[in-house]
Amino acid sequence: MNSAPDPARRSERARLAVLDSAMELCRENGFAQLTIEAIAERAGVSKKTIYRWWPSKGAVLLEAVSEAATAAAFHVDTGDLAVDMRTQLAGVVALFTPRDSSPVAALMSESQRDPSLATEVREQLIRPRIALFEERMRSAQRSGEIPEGADLGVALDLFYGPIYHRLVFHLDLPDDEELGARVDHVIAALRAMPAANR
Amino acid sequence: MNSAPDPARRSERARLAVLDSAMELCRENGFAQLTIEAIAERAGVSKKTIYRWWPSKGAVLLEAVSEAATAAAFHVDTGDLAVDMRTQLAGVVALFTPRDSSPVAALMSESQRDPSLATEVREQLIRPRIALFEERMRSAQRSGEIPEGADLGVALDLFYGPIYHRLVFHLDLPDDEELGARVDHVIAALRAMPAANR
Repeated sequence: MNSAPDPARRSERARLAVLDSAMELCRENGFAQLTIEAIAERAGVSKKTIYRWWPSKGAVLLEAVSEAATAAAFHVDTGDLAVDMRTQLAGVVALFTPRDSSPVAALMSESQRDPSLATEVREQLIRPRIALFEERMRSAQRSGEIPEGADLGVALDLFYGPIYHRLVFHLDLPDDEELGARVDHVIAALRAMPAANR
Repeated sequence: MNSAPDPARRSERARLAVLDSAMELCRENGFAQLTIEAIAERAGVSKKTIYRWWPSKGAVLLEAVSEAATAAAFHVDTGDLAVDMRTQLAGVVALFTPRDSSPVAALMSESQRDPSLATEVREQLIRPRIALFEERMRSAQRSGEIPEGADLGVALDLFYGPIYHRLVFHLDLPDDEELGARVDHVIAALRAMPAANR
Protein backbone atom coordinates (compact mmCIF):
# COMPACT_ATOMS: atom_id res chain seq x y z
CA MET A 1 0.00 0.00 0.00
CA ASN A 2 1.18 3.55 -0.72
CA SER A 3 1.99 5.59 2.36
CA ALA A 4 1.08 9.27 2.51
CA PRO A 5 3.93 11.69 1.62
CA ASP A 6 6.11 12.40 4.63
CA PRO A 7 6.29 16.22 4.97
CA ALA A 8 9.20 16.04 7.42
CA ARG A 9 11.28 14.04 4.96
CA ARG A 10 10.36 16.30 2.07
CA SER A 11 11.34 19.30 4.18
CA GLU A 12 14.73 17.81 5.00
CA ARG A 13 15.34 17.16 1.30
CA ALA A 14 14.45 20.77 0.50
CA ARG A 15 16.59 22.02 3.36
CA LEU A 16 19.65 20.17 2.08
CA ALA A 17 18.99 21.36 -1.47
CA VAL A 18 18.89 24.96 -0.24
CA LEU A 19 22.12 24.59 1.75
CA ASP A 20 23.95 22.88 -1.14
CA SER A 21 22.74 25.51 -3.58
CA ALA A 22 23.88 28.36 -1.33
CA MET A 23 27.36 26.83 -1.01
CA GLU A 24 27.64 26.21 -4.77
CA LEU A 25 26.47 29.68 -5.73
CA CYS A 26 28.76 31.30 -3.18
CA ARG A 27 31.69 29.31 -4.58
CA GLU A 28 30.79 30.26 -8.16
CA ASN A 29 29.95 33.95 -7.79
CA GLY A 30 30.94 35.09 -4.30
CA PHE A 31 28.83 36.26 -1.39
CA ALA A 32 28.00 39.68 -2.85
CA GLN A 33 26.24 38.09 -5.83
CA LEU A 34 24.37 35.52 -3.74
CA THR A 35 20.60 36.09 -3.60
CA ILE A 36 17.68 34.21 -2.07
CA GLU A 37 16.15 34.16 -5.54
CA ALA A 38 19.15 32.39 -7.07
CA ILE A 39 19.30 29.92 -4.19
CA ALA A 40 15.58 29.14 -4.61
CA GLU A 41 15.95 28.63 -8.34
CA ARG A 42 18.98 26.35 -8.01
CA ALA A 43 17.38 24.36 -5.18
CA GLY A 44 14.03 24.04 -6.95
CA VAL A 45 12.04 25.55 -4.09
CA SER A 46 10.09 28.78 -3.73
CA LYS A 47 11.54 31.93 -2.18
CA LYS A 48 8.69 31.66 0.33
CA THR A 49 10.00 28.27 1.45
CA ILE A 50 13.43 29.74 2.09
CA TYR A 51 12.07 32.75 3.98
CA ARG A 52 9.96 30.43 6.11
CA TRP A 53 13.16 28.89 7.50
CA TRP A 54 15.84 31.55 7.20
CA PRO A 55 15.66 35.35 7.63
CA SER A 56 18.52 36.18 5.21
CA LYS A 57 21.10 34.79 2.80
CA GLY A 58 23.67 35.14 5.60
CA ALA A 59 21.55 32.83 7.78
CA VAL A 60 21.33 30.24 4.97
CA LEU A 61 25.09 30.35 4.46
CA LEU A 62 25.75 30.15 8.21
CA GLU A 63 23.72 26.93 8.44
CA ALA A 64 25.45 25.50 5.35
CA VAL A 65 28.89 26.39 6.70
CA SER A 66 28.02 24.90 10.11
CA GLU A 67 27.21 21.58 8.48
CA ALA A 68 30.34 21.72 6.31
CA ALA A 69 32.47 22.47 9.39
CA THR A 70 30.91 19.59 11.31
CA ALA A 71 31.67 17.25 8.42
CA ALA A 72 35.20 18.44 7.60
CA ALA A 73 36.73 19.58 10.88
CA PHE A 74 35.63 17.26 13.67
CA HIS A 75 37.68 16.27 16.68
CA VAL A 76 38.87 12.69 16.91
CA ASP A 77 40.41 11.09 19.96
CA THR A 78 42.99 8.45 19.04
CA GLY A 79 44.87 9.06 22.29
CA ASP A 80 47.58 11.05 20.42
CA LEU A 81 46.83 14.76 20.83
CA ALA A 82 49.47 15.94 18.33
CA VAL A 83 48.12 13.68 15.58
CA ASP A 84 44.51 14.53 16.35
CA MET A 85 45.01 18.31 16.43
CA ARG A 86 46.99 18.18 13.19
CA THR A 87 44.12 16.30 11.55
CA GLN A 88 41.52 18.69 12.91
CA LEU A 89 43.45 21.83 11.96
CA ALA A 90 44.04 20.46 8.45
CA GLY A 91 40.25 20.11 8.25
CA VAL A 92 39.82 23.76 9.24
CA VAL A 93 42.39 24.87 6.65
CA ALA A 94 40.55 22.81 4.00
CA LEU A 95 37.36 24.75 4.77
CA PHE A 96 39.18 27.97 3.80
CA THR A 97 40.73 26.48 0.64
CA PRO A 98 40.80 27.74 -2.05
CA ARG A 99 40.50 30.99 -0.22
CA ASP A 100 39.03 33.09 -3.01
CA SER A 101 36.03 30.81 -3.53
CA SER A 102 35.60 29.37 -0.03
CA PRO A 103 32.07 29.96 1.30
CA VAL A 104 33.52 29.72 4.81
CA ALA A 105 35.99 32.54 4.08
CA ALA A 106 33.13 34.50 2.51
CA LEU A 107 31.01 34.12 5.65
CA MET A 108 33.89 35.25 7.87
CA SER A 109 34.60 38.26 5.62
CA GLU A 110 30.96 39.26 5.58
CA SER A 111 30.72 38.98 9.35
CA GLN A 112 33.57 41.53 9.67
CA ARG A 113 31.21 44.09 8.15
CA ASP A 114 27.95 42.94 9.65
CA PRO A 115 27.98 42.88 13.48
CA SER A 116 24.68 40.99 13.81
CA LEU A 117 25.90 38.25 11.46
CA ALA A 118 29.17 38.21 13.47
CA THR A 119 27.18 37.60 16.65
CA GLU A 120 25.26 34.72 15.02
CA VAL A 121 28.47 33.18 13.67
CA ARG A 122 30.09 33.40 17.10
CA GLU A 123 27.15 32.03 19.07
CA GLN A 124 25.82 29.41 16.64
CA LEU A 125 29.01 28.22 14.94
CA ILE A 126 32.10 29.13 16.97
CA ARG A 127 31.08 28.69 20.61
CA PRO A 128 29.77 25.13 20.08
CA ARG A 129 32.99 24.28 18.23
CA ILE A 130 35.08 25.72 21.07
CA ALA A 131 33.14 23.44 23.44
CA LEU A 132 34.11 20.41 21.31
CA PHE A 133 37.75 21.54 21.34
CA GLU A 134 37.67 21.87 25.13
CA GLU A 135 36.22 18.37 25.41
CA ARG A 136 39.20 16.99 23.44
CA MET A 137 41.59 18.99 25.65
CA ARG A 138 40.03 17.65 28.83
CA SER A 139 40.47 14.14 27.49
CA ALA A 140 44.19 14.94 26.92
CA GLN A 141 44.37 16.23 30.49
CA ARG A 142 42.81 13.03 31.83
CA SER A 143 45.26 10.88 29.86
CA GLY A 144 48.19 13.02 31.03
CA GLU A 145 49.21 14.31 27.58
CA ILE A 146 48.88 17.86 28.86
CA PRO A 147 48.90 18.95 32.50
CA GLU A 148 45.69 19.07 34.55
CA GLY A 149 46.15 22.80 35.07
CA ALA A 150 46.82 23.69 31.43
CA ASP A 151 45.11 26.94 30.40
CA LEU A 152 42.59 25.87 27.74
CA GLY A 153 41.94 29.47 26.69
CA VAL A 154 45.63 29.85 25.84
CA ALA A 155 45.54 26.46 24.09
CA LEU A 156 42.59 27.57 21.95
CA ASP A 157 44.26 30.83 20.88
CA LEU A 158 47.61 29.16 20.14
CA PHE A 159 46.24 26.16 18.23
CA TYR A 160 43.83 28.17 16.05
CA GLY A 161 45.54 31.57 15.99
CA PRO A 162 48.05 30.72 13.24
CA ILE A 163 45.26 29.96 10.74
CA TYR A 164 43.47 33.26 11.33
CA HIS A 165 46.66 35.30 11.46
CA ARG A 166 47.51 33.99 7.98
CA LEU A 167 43.95 34.42 6.75
CA VAL A 168 43.54 38.06 7.83
CA PHE A 169 46.78 39.15 6.16
CA HIS A 170 46.38 37.03 3.02
CA LEU A 171 49.52 35.10 3.82
CA ASP A 172 49.54 31.48 2.59
CA LEU A 173 47.62 29.18 4.93
CA PRO A 174 49.84 26.73 6.83
CA ASP A 175 50.55 23.45 5.02
CA ASP A 176 50.59 20.09 6.84
CA GLU A 177 54.23 20.39 7.86
CA GLU A 178 53.73 23.90 9.19
CA LEU A 179 50.61 22.80 11.07
CA GLY A 180 52.60 19.96 12.61
CA ALA A 181 55.36 22.32 13.79
CA ARG A 182 52.81 24.67 15.36
CA VAL A 183 50.91 21.85 17.07
CA ASP A 184 54.16 20.46 18.49
CA HIS A 185 55.14 23.90 19.81
CA VAL A 186 51.76 24.46 21.46
CA ILE A 187 51.79 21.07 23.18
CA ALA A 188 55.37 21.75 24.33
CA ALA A 189 54.23 25.12 25.72
CA LEU A 190 51.32 23.58 27.64
CA ARG A 191 53.67 20.97 29.11
CA ALA A 192 56.48 23.42 29.90
CA MET A 193 54.54 26.09 31.75
CA PRO A 194 54.97 25.86 35.51
CA ALA A 195 51.64 25.37 37.27
CA ALA A 196 51.78 28.83 38.87
CA ASN A 197 51.77 30.53 35.47
CA ARG A 198 48.97 28.52 33.94
CA MET B 1 63.97 88.65 5.35
CA ASN B 2 61.04 86.55 4.29
CA SER B 3 61.93 83.20 2.76
CA ALA B 4 59.95 81.81 -0.15
CA PRO B 5 57.22 79.31 0.84
CA ASP B 6 58.62 75.81 1.14
CA PRO B 7 56.48 73.54 -1.09
CA ALA B 8 57.89 70.36 0.47
CA ARG B 9 56.87 71.51 3.95
CA ARG B 10 53.46 72.61 2.76
CA SER B 11 52.97 69.19 1.12
CA GLU B 12 53.88 67.36 4.30
CA ARG B 13 51.37 69.48 6.24
CA ALA B 14 48.67 68.66 3.68
CA ARG B 15 49.64 64.98 3.71
CA LEU B 16 49.26 64.77 7.48
CA ALA B 17 45.94 66.65 7.35
CA VAL B 18 44.65 64.15 4.78
CA LEU B 19 45.76 61.14 6.84
CA ASP B 20 44.32 62.55 10.08
CA SER B 21 41.04 63.40 8.36
CA ALA B 22 40.74 59.92 6.87
CA MET B 23 41.28 58.32 10.29
CA GLU B 24 38.78 60.65 11.98
CA LEU B 25 36.09 60.17 9.35
CA CYS B 26 36.55 56.41 9.37
CA ARG B 27 36.20 56.41 13.16
CA GLU B 28 33.07 58.58 12.99
CA ASN B 29 31.20 56.99 10.08
CA GLY B 30 32.93 53.75 9.12
CA PHE B 31 34.80 52.79 5.96
CA ALA B 32 31.69 52.42 3.77
CA GLN B 33 30.78 56.09 4.29
CA LEU B 34 34.33 57.35 3.75
CA THR B 35 34.79 59.36 0.53
CA ILE B 36 37.69 61.26 -1.02
CA GLU B 37 35.39 64.28 -1.09
CA ALA B 38 34.77 64.18 2.65
CA ILE B 39 38.47 63.67 3.36
CA ALA B 40 39.35 66.65 1.14
CA GLU B 41 36.79 68.86 2.84
CA ARG B 42 37.90 67.92 6.36
CA ALA B 43 41.59 68.30 5.47
CA GLY B 44 41.07 71.62 3.67
CA VAL B 45 42.67 70.43 0.44
CA SER B 46 41.27 69.80 -3.04
CA LYS B 47 40.19 66.36 -4.25
CA LYS B 48 42.79 66.82 -6.99
CA THR B 49 45.52 67.08 -4.36
CA ILE B 50 44.44 63.79 -2.82
CA TYR B 51 44.22 62.00 -6.17
CA ARG B 52 47.71 63.28 -7.03
CA TRP B 53 49.10 61.23 -4.13
CA TRP B 54 46.68 58.33 -3.60
CA PRO B 55 44.66 56.27 -6.09
CA SER B 56 41.77 55.46 -3.71
CA LYS B 57 40.33 55.96 -0.24
CA GLY B 58 41.74 52.53 0.66
CA ALA B 59 45.24 53.76 -0.22
CA VAL B 60 44.80 56.86 1.97
CA LEU B 61 43.63 54.73 4.88
CA LEU B 62 46.45 52.23 4.38
CA GLU B 63 49.03 55.01 4.67
CA ALA B 64 47.27 56.48 7.71
CA VAL B 65 47.09 53.07 9.39
CA SER B 66 50.75 52.37 8.59
CA GLU B 67 51.77 55.54 10.40
CA ALA B 68 49.46 54.78 13.33
CA ALA B 69 50.90 51.25 13.57
CA THR B 70 54.46 52.57 13.52
CA ALA B 71 53.61 55.00 16.32
CA ALA B 72 51.56 52.64 18.51
CA ALA B 73 53.02 49.18 18.04
CA PHE B 74 56.80 49.42 17.73
CA HIS B 75 59.30 46.87 18.94
CA VAL B 76 61.51 47.83 21.86
CA ASP B 77 64.53 45.89 23.05
CA THR B 78 65.00 46.17 26.80
CA GLY B 79 66.71 42.79 26.89
CA ASP B 80 63.55 41.15 28.32
CA LEU B 81 61.67 39.47 25.48
CA ALA B 82 58.54 38.66 27.52
CA VAL B 83 58.13 42.28 28.66
CA ASP B 84 58.86 43.68 25.20
CA MET B 85 56.45 41.37 23.35
CA ARG B 86 53.72 42.07 25.89
CA THR B 87 54.20 45.81 25.31
CA GLN B 88 54.22 45.43 21.55
CA LEU B 89 51.16 43.17 21.46
CA ALA B 90 49.26 45.54 23.76
CA GLY B 91 50.04 48.24 21.16
CA VAL B 92 48.58 46.05 18.41
CA VAL B 93 45.45 45.39 20.47
CA ALA B 94 45.09 49.14 21.08
CA LEU B 95 45.05 49.70 17.31
CA PHE B 96 41.96 47.47 17.09
CA THR B 97 40.20 49.12 20.07
CA PRO B 98 37.37 50.00 20.19
CA ARG B 99 36.78 47.46 17.51
CA ASP B 100 33.63 48.93 16.01
CA SER B 101 35.23 52.29 15.26
CA SER B 102 38.85 51.25 14.72
CA PRO B 103 40.15 52.41 11.32
CA VAL B 104 42.68 49.56 11.50
CA ALA B 105 39.90 46.98 11.92
CA ALA B 106 38.01 48.70 9.08
CA LEU B 107 41.02 48.40 6.78
CA MET B 108 41.43 44.71 7.62
CA SER B 109 37.71 44.03 7.07
CA GLU B 110 37.74 45.84 3.76
CA SER B 111 40.81 43.92 2.61
CA GLN B 112 38.91 40.64 3.18
CA ARG B 113 36.60 41.70 0.36
CA ASP B 114 39.09 43.46 -1.90
CA PRO B 115 42.00 41.24 -2.96
CA SER B 116 44.06 44.10 -4.45
CA LEU B 117 43.78 46.09 -1.21
CA ALA B 118 44.70 42.89 0.66
CA THR B 119 47.86 42.59 -1.42
CA GLU B 120 48.80 46.20 -0.71
CA VAL B 121 48.15 45.77 3.01
CA ARG B 122 50.28 42.65 3.08
CA GLU B 123 53.19 44.04 1.09
CA GLN B 124 53.26 47.64 2.35
CA LEU B 125 52.11 47.23 5.94
CA ILE B 126 52.49 43.64 7.13
CA ARG B 127 55.71 42.37 5.54
CA PRO B 128 57.80 45.33 6.79
CA ARG B 129 56.33 44.83 10.27
CA ILE B 130 57.16 41.10 10.15
CA ALA B 131 60.75 42.11 9.31
CA LEU B 132 60.88 44.30 12.44
CA PHE B 133 59.48 41.41 14.52
CA GLU B 134 62.16 39.08 13.13
CA GLU B 135 64.84 41.62 14.01
CA ARG B 136 63.65 41.60 17.64
CA MET B 137 63.62 37.78 17.62
CA ARG B 138 67.16 37.60 16.27
CA SER B 139 68.28 39.89 19.07
CA ALA B 140 66.62 37.48 21.55
CA GLN B 141 68.48 34.62 19.87
CA ARG B 142 71.80 36.46 20.18
CA SER B 143 71.19 37.16 23.85
CA GLY B 144 70.18 33.54 24.46
CA GLU B 145 66.58 34.26 25.52
CA ILE B 146 65.37 31.88 22.81
CA PRO B 147 67.44 29.20 21.08
CA GLU B 148 69.52 29.95 17.99
CA GLY B 149 67.47 27.45 16.01
CA ALA B 150 64.03 28.71 17.08
CA ASP B 151 61.52 28.71 14.20
CA LEU B 152 60.67 32.39 13.73
CA GLY B 153 57.72 31.58 11.45
CA VAL B 154 56.17 29.57 14.26
CA ALA B 155 57.00 32.38 16.70
CA LEU B 156 55.24 34.92 14.46
CA ASP B 157 52.07 32.81 14.14
CA LEU B 158 51.93 32.00 17.85
CA PHE B 159 52.64 35.52 19.15
CA TYR B 160 50.18 37.27 16.82
CA GLY B 161 47.66 34.51 16.12
CA PRO B 162 45.66 34.97 19.34
CA ILE B 163 44.78 38.58 18.43
CA TYR B 164 43.50 37.66 14.98
CA HIS B 165 41.70 34.54 16.15
CA ARG B 166 39.74 36.71 18.59
CA LEU B 167 39.22 39.45 16.03
CA VAL B 168 37.82 37.21 13.27
CA PHE B 169 35.26 35.60 15.57
CA HIS B 170 34.31 38.76 17.45
CA LEU B 171 35.53 37.30 20.72
CA ASP B 172 36.89 39.86 23.20
CA LEU B 173 40.44 40.88 22.40
CA PRO B 174 43.00 39.63 24.96
CA ASP B 175 43.57 41.92 27.95
CA ASP B 176 47.04 42.55 29.38
CA GLU B 177 46.95 39.52 31.66
CA GLU B 178 45.83 37.25 28.82
CA LEU B 179 48.53 38.69 26.55
CA GLY B 180 51.09 37.98 29.24
CA ALA B 181 49.99 34.35 29.62
CA ARG B 182 50.17 33.83 25.84
CA VAL B 183 53.60 35.46 25.54
CA ASP B 184 54.93 33.30 28.38
CA HIS B 185 53.58 30.16 26.71
CA VAL B 186 55.11 31.04 23.33
CA ILE B 187 58.53 31.74 24.82
CA ALA B 188 58.29 28.47 26.79
CA ALA B 189 57.44 26.65 23.54
CA LEU B 190 60.40 28.14 21.67
CA ARG B 191 62.72 27.14 24.53
CA ALA B 192 61.22 23.67 25.00
CA MET B 193 61.30 22.43 21.42
CA PRO B 194 64.21 20.07 20.75
CA ALA B 195 66.48 21.36 17.97
CA ALA B 196 65.47 18.54 15.61
CA ASN B 197 61.85 19.69 15.61
CA ARG B 198 62.52 23.38 15.13
